[in-house]
Amino acid sequence: MMPDDMSRPLIRERGDGGARHLEASVSDPSTPVIGILGTGDFSRSLARRLVASGYQVVVGSRTPKRFVALFPEDVEVTTQLEAANQADLVFVAVYPEHHSTLVELKPALVGKVLVDVSNSLCINQNGPSNAELLADYFPESSVVKGFNTISAWTLQMGPRDGGRQVFLCGNSQKAKNTVKSVCHRMGFIPVDMGLLSSSLEIENMPLHLFPSWRFPVFCTSFLFVFFYLYNFLRDVLQPFVTEGKKVFYKMPIEIVNVTLPSVALVMLALVYLPGLLAAFAQLRSGTKYNRFPGWLDRWLTTRKQLGLCSFMCAVLHTVYSLCLPLRKSARFKLIAAAYKQVKSGVEDPWVDEEVWRMELYLSVGIMALGLLSLLAVTSLPSVANTINWREFSFIQSTLGYCALFMATAHTLLYGWNRAFDLKQYRFNMPPTFVLVLVLPFAVLLGRLALCVPCVAGRLRKIRRGWERSRHVCFTLPAEDCRNGLENVSNV
Amino acid sequence: MMPDDMSRPLIRERGDGGARHLEASVSDPSTPVIGILGTGDFSRSLARRLVASGYQVVVGSRTPKRFVALFPEDVEVTTQLEAANQADLVFVAVYPEHHSTLVELKPALVGKVLVDVSNSLCINQNGPSNAELLADYFPESSVVKGFNTISAWTLQMGPRDGGRQVFLCGNSQKAKNTVKSVCHRMGFIPVDMGLLSSSLEIENMPLHLFPSWRFPVFCTSFLFVFFYLYNFLRDVLQPFVTEGKKVFYKMPIEIVNVTLPSVALVMLALVYLPGLLAAFAQLRSGTKYNRFPGWLDRWLTTRKQLGLCSFMCAVLHTVYSLCLPLRKSARFKLIAAAYKQVKSGVEDPWVDEEVWRMELYLSVGIMALGLLSLLAVTSLPSVANTINWREFSFIQSTLGYCALFMATAHTLLYGWNRAFDLKQYRFNMPPTFVLVLVLPFAVLLGRLALCVPCVAGRLRKIRRGWERSRHVCFTLPAEDCRNGLENVSNV
Amino acid sequence: MMPDDMSRPLIRERGDGGARHLEASVSDPSTPVIGILGTGDFSRSLARRLVASGYQVVVGSRTPKRFVALFPEDVEVTTQLEAANQADLVFVAVYPEHHSTLVELKPALVGKVLVDVSNSLCINQNGPSNAELLADYFPESSVVKGFNTISAWTLQMGPRDGGRQVFLCGNSQKAKNTVKSVCHRMGFIPVDMGLLSSSLEIENMPLHLFPSWRFPVFCTSFLFVFFYLYNFLRDVLQPFVTEGKKVFYKMPIEIVNVTLPSVALVMLALVYLPGLLAAFAQLRSGTKYNRFPGWLDRWLTTRKQLGLCSFMCAVLHTVYSLCLPLRKSARFKLIAAAYKQVKSGVEDPWVDEEVWRMELYLSVGIMALGLLSLLAVTSLPSVANTINWREFSFIQSTLGYCALFMATAHTLLYGWNRAFDLKQYRFNMPPTFVLVLVLPFAVLLGRLALCVPCVAGRLRKIRRGWERSRHVCFTLPAEDCRNGLENVSNV
Repeated sequence: MMPDDMSRPLIRERGDGGARHLEASVSDPSTPVIGILGTGDFSRSLARRLVASGYQVVVGSRTPKRFVALFPEDVEVTTQLEAANQADLVFVAVYPEHHSTLVELKPALVGKVLVDVSNSLCINQNGPSNAELLADYFPESSVVKGFNTISAWTLQMGPRDGGRQVFLCGNSQKAKNTVKSVCHRMGFIPVDMGLLSSSLEIENMPLHLFPSWRFPVFCTSFLFVFFYLYNFLRDVLQPFVTEGKKVFYKMPIEIVNVTLPSVALVMLALVYLPGLLAAFAQLRSGTKYNRFPGWLDRWLTTRKQLGLCSFMCAVLHTVYSLCLPLRKSARFKLIAAAYKQVKSGVEDPWVDEEVWRMELYLSVGIMALGLLSLLAVTSLPSVANTINWREFSFIQSTLGYCALFMATAHTLLYGWNRAFDLKQYRFNMPPTFVLVLVLPFAVLLGRLALCVPCVAGRLRKIRRGWERSRHVCFTLPAEDCRNGLENVSNV
Repeated sequence: MMPDDMSRPLIRERGDGGARHLEASVSDPSTPVIGILGTGDFSRSLARRLVASGYQVVVGSRTPKRFVALFPEDVEVTTQLEAANQADLVFVAVYPEHHSTLVELKPALVGKVLVDVSNSLCINQNGPSNAELLADYFPESSVVKGFNTISAWTLQMGPRDGGRQVFLCGNSQKAKNTVKSVCHRMGFIPVDMGLLSSSLEIENMPLHLFPSWRFPVFCTSFLFVFFYLYNFLRDVLQPFVTEGKKVFYKMPIEIVNVTLPSVALVMLALVYLPGLLAAFAQLRSGTKYNRFPGWLDRWLTTRKQLGLCSFMCAVLHTVYSLCLPLRKSARFKLIAAAYKQVKSGVEDPWVDEEVWRMELYLSVGIMALGLLSLLAVTSLPSVANTINWREFSFIQSTLGYCALFMATAHTLLYGWNRAFDLKQYRFNMPPTFVLVLVLPFAVLLGRLALCVPCVAGRLRKIRRGWERSRHVCFTLPAEDCRNGLENVSNV
Repeated sequence: MMPDDMSRPLIRERGDGGARHLEASVSDPSTPVIGILGTGDFSRSLARRLVASGYQVVVGSRTPKRFVALFPEDVEVTTQLEAANQADLVFVAVYPEHHSTLVELKPALVGKVLVDVSNSLCINQNGPSNAELLADYFPESSVVKGFNTISAWTLQMGPRDGGRQVFLCGNSQKAKNTVKSVCHRMGFIPVDMGLLSSSLEIENMPLHLFPSWRFPVFCTSFLFVFFYLYNFLRDVLQPFVTEGKKVFYKMPIEIVNVTLPSVALVMLALVYLPGLLAAFAQLRSGTKYNRFPGWLDRWLTTRKQLGLCSFMCAVLHTVYSLCLPLRKSARFKLIAAAYKQVKSGVEDPWVDEEVWRMELYLSVGIMALGLLSLLAVTSLPSVANTINWREFSFIQSTLGYCALFMATAHTLLYGWNRAFDLKQYRFNMPPTFVLVLVLPFAVLLGRLALCVPCVAGRLRKIRRGWERSRHVCFTLPAEDCRNGLENVSNV
């Protein structure tokens, strides 16, 4: 499953190489001649794309002959010096450790724009970045960092799917503007990240591996392991130890299926808890201008991921549950039950309470799942892009709390009165759902507390910029509006 | 679940504030110095983003000292007048009701671009807009409306997910172009909405709450309530009244589960009905140049939402159905059946007709669901962006009608011969599926009618621009092509 | 389900037509006056959009009077000649076959930019393209091809959903730049496709119908038919022929449900096979600079589609399986079994092995599905856009292979020991899962082979640009990095 298809190649070599040169250089002298130093796959894809965007391209190599064949025919492959001389703008696509070998080109590159597309092999926290080092080698050229976040693949495909972003930085705005116009002409969206000092960040970008998912995934795994063991002890080990009942067959499905919803519900509570904490923090400090502690900030920013983890568990829980009646074990139990029934001669096994309990918690559960799916869909980037902030927060906050409420109700109905049934306290361990419900309850109560008129009013005032200390207010309604929503959606 | 993550802050304060000023002002005089009036969250995020995009930023506040700490260090926080004097382009980020207090800056702002980023707190239908009022205060500055659709959040995050749009309007094209270049440099996509008279529309944008979903959601709810009551009367009340059978346990799941598919099918028919009406309207009037009545136009434009509602009901119906065998009630019934079986001493309860009926309607139902999912996926913005109009209409129209046909077949097979079974007419109410099938049948027949050669041919001609009145045709094939498809997809 | 909603019209006619003209022409003379030849829906939508973007628009028609009413009031509808004279840039929106009729405008169009928006009605492989023909008619104007990929609908809606792309090409860079700025101002993203010789490709774009899906869909259908027949013979025909057992009721669901997973698994193997072949090819040739054979290249580029087909089958398989216990047939069988149970007087039918087998293969199956869903989600364009190459390949390759492994395990556990049970070889045909497992096993073993240290090391070297022939290496780490990943993700 690759990001895009190459079935319709973007570039078709034609015999018009000459013509194109002519065109690019003559019909529009303003078009810069673009040089590329290096002949790796990246420089090849880059060359193809530049040619396709109507540029004249000169590639500089130490051994031009070896590589001519690998480039489209209307690309000129020559010596590095030759390329450096001809080009107005030069992409440096060689090993950073070889940057030093380029110093001989220094005179040829004076006053020109150098684009450093290099990446490191591993995240570099302290710097200096490759780009900064390059800038030290060529003080008289203006170095721009960029394109390292774009893969050779994307370059070759072109940004078919609605515009990829190219993150740029550099100390000369003029140089950046030149590079940006090249981006635009290639169909990318340049994003200016400021001065060259940001290059380290840009170089690290493609090396990150879901940084924002670490904490949520860790949470999920931890909760899963915890609840799995807990359920294993209660439902498998206890019967085995006390009555010697062998129900180990429950481990792959049944135990997992009581564990997943627990994780899902706790995770969902964790989505809305930080917003509550933030609100209470603001109420205590009486202003919105105090920074939140770092951990809270980080927590607030991973709510999306926490929510999606919770959703994933909920979906898996659904699938597992639906699989239950498929199993041979279910079949055997049913037949055995039928057998007992007949032997005992009781005609109808119907127990109204059990029936109602199950009908209710199933339907509530389905509704909770439905709401969660809406939340999941609207957190798709393209969908989130098409809805405004008010709509987004309506879904994420209002519907989100409904989902949390539903899920809690689902668990309560599932638990029914078993919380008060001593037989359930095997090994003196309370039934799982009792543990699970603690956090959701806390969150729902906290949310209720914020609805108490006086509290709500004060919070609104604070978020409109009011401060306990002074009573003038400078923020603009637009802002409040957004804030209001943002914070509602936090709470 | 938030739109994006802040784990990697876009901006890192560094000691190079001075350097940056130098850079922005010296190395590239063309870069406008940007002023911001107001110190709310929005202006703070804006300032950070502008600095990150390499601009020199001056913030004007009534009490600069209070706010210096809240801005990145390389932002200059000073008096409003000072800021107004220094800046070439000024973002007005203060309460609209405070706009009047800015008049003292009038001389300083003459000939400069004012960007009004304000929103109203509630939708304003009649105008004048904040921006128009601002323009009245500053007749000698050129006011541009914009950025109010962007939240402080997005500003701070930057448009990570492939370009956010900034809707702009203003009376001076030159001013708009300046603002646009600022947009581009911040990584946003400016969309020119024309003259300042559009500002009201732009100001209302962030206040809308799913306007295009109102009608579809209303339809869905109405149909749901109607069919729920209908089924309740037939399946729960009637047995209770006539035979005193208590089957109220059916309310949470079984009744819902016969209601949902009814809603889904009717809604799906409502997706394709307006296209049919449009086609017949064109056939009657003999031209495509007559406007459709407003209600039809509106209906045509909510087909996507209608379709997604239908899909949602279909999915819920699936989940509910799959839950049926999970229920205790099902289990009890099964055991009771087994019991009867044994007592009656009949070895095999097999009834071939019932088996076939169920196998068939289940499989047809699954296919219908599969097709609907394809339709749902292709209506995701990012997917819709990657397919061309022909592919889109193939999915939405051709596959869509297949889905409608399948769903109808599913219902027919479910109904089997019970439509002709008088026992089914409880309280003289026909079985639900009979009511449900009316509309889909009408639509499918209508579509068939349009396939009759002479009709189809005439329609094609009309859509190629032919008119009964005259016989020349000015539209271009490209257009027809699209039209053709568009209308196919409408029909 | 349409791509967007029109509930909030982008354009509202107002009495300021005059004002706008004034504005467009006076306040900013740089704004080109834009002419449109032709009065079809496309030119109408184009006119509206251009006006909304603050342009002055002149439409040229043969019978202006007829069409004035159809255009927004601030559009000037006049004769073609008049329009050609006034405009600086002219959209040609008439039938290509009518292009010849425009020659009379030749003098008026000298030195101006003509944008050809026309499409063909069917794919044109050999050229010349409409644009090239137009260029022959107007040698002294510079023709740019473009906007034909945009539908009237999108034009009218504006690119609400985050930027649509407009593919452009033309021989004059200057002309293209003018058109591009128009694109940008309308909110579209221009993509420069090079010289006018690319116009044929651009004209064919909107006529393609899922070219990249042909092969995958064909594969899926072929495998489906094959496995369906195979299963039909073994599970339906054989019992009928040999024992006269009538189990035709199995055809709609049970047979389909054993066929789907077979297709899914084989397709999934086909996703990862080409990457393996590529790796082995590179190992044999000892360089990465040899081109792969065409069929392998094409195969490599349809992996995404193959994967999604496989996913679709897997999901359908899940739904079908979950439907099994719903069926009357299942119910009848269960009751019959209970009956037998009672008659035979055996109290507990429990068979531990069967129970374990089923619990295991169900749970493994669910995990496989979960992993596949992750892969499917990340192949949504908007999601793929937000993750970097390393993350993408982690999902697609690492998780992908886990999914393949899981799915294989699922099938193995399902098969259990029946592969060695002769009774299973009906008509001497081995059980389906035996056939199915061949390919996945091959792929998994091949992948293992590539993990053998020496092989892995050599492959890494080759992909870092090393060649058996020479030992210097020019590619840059960034590139390797990407390659490394790209190829891991291929393998």
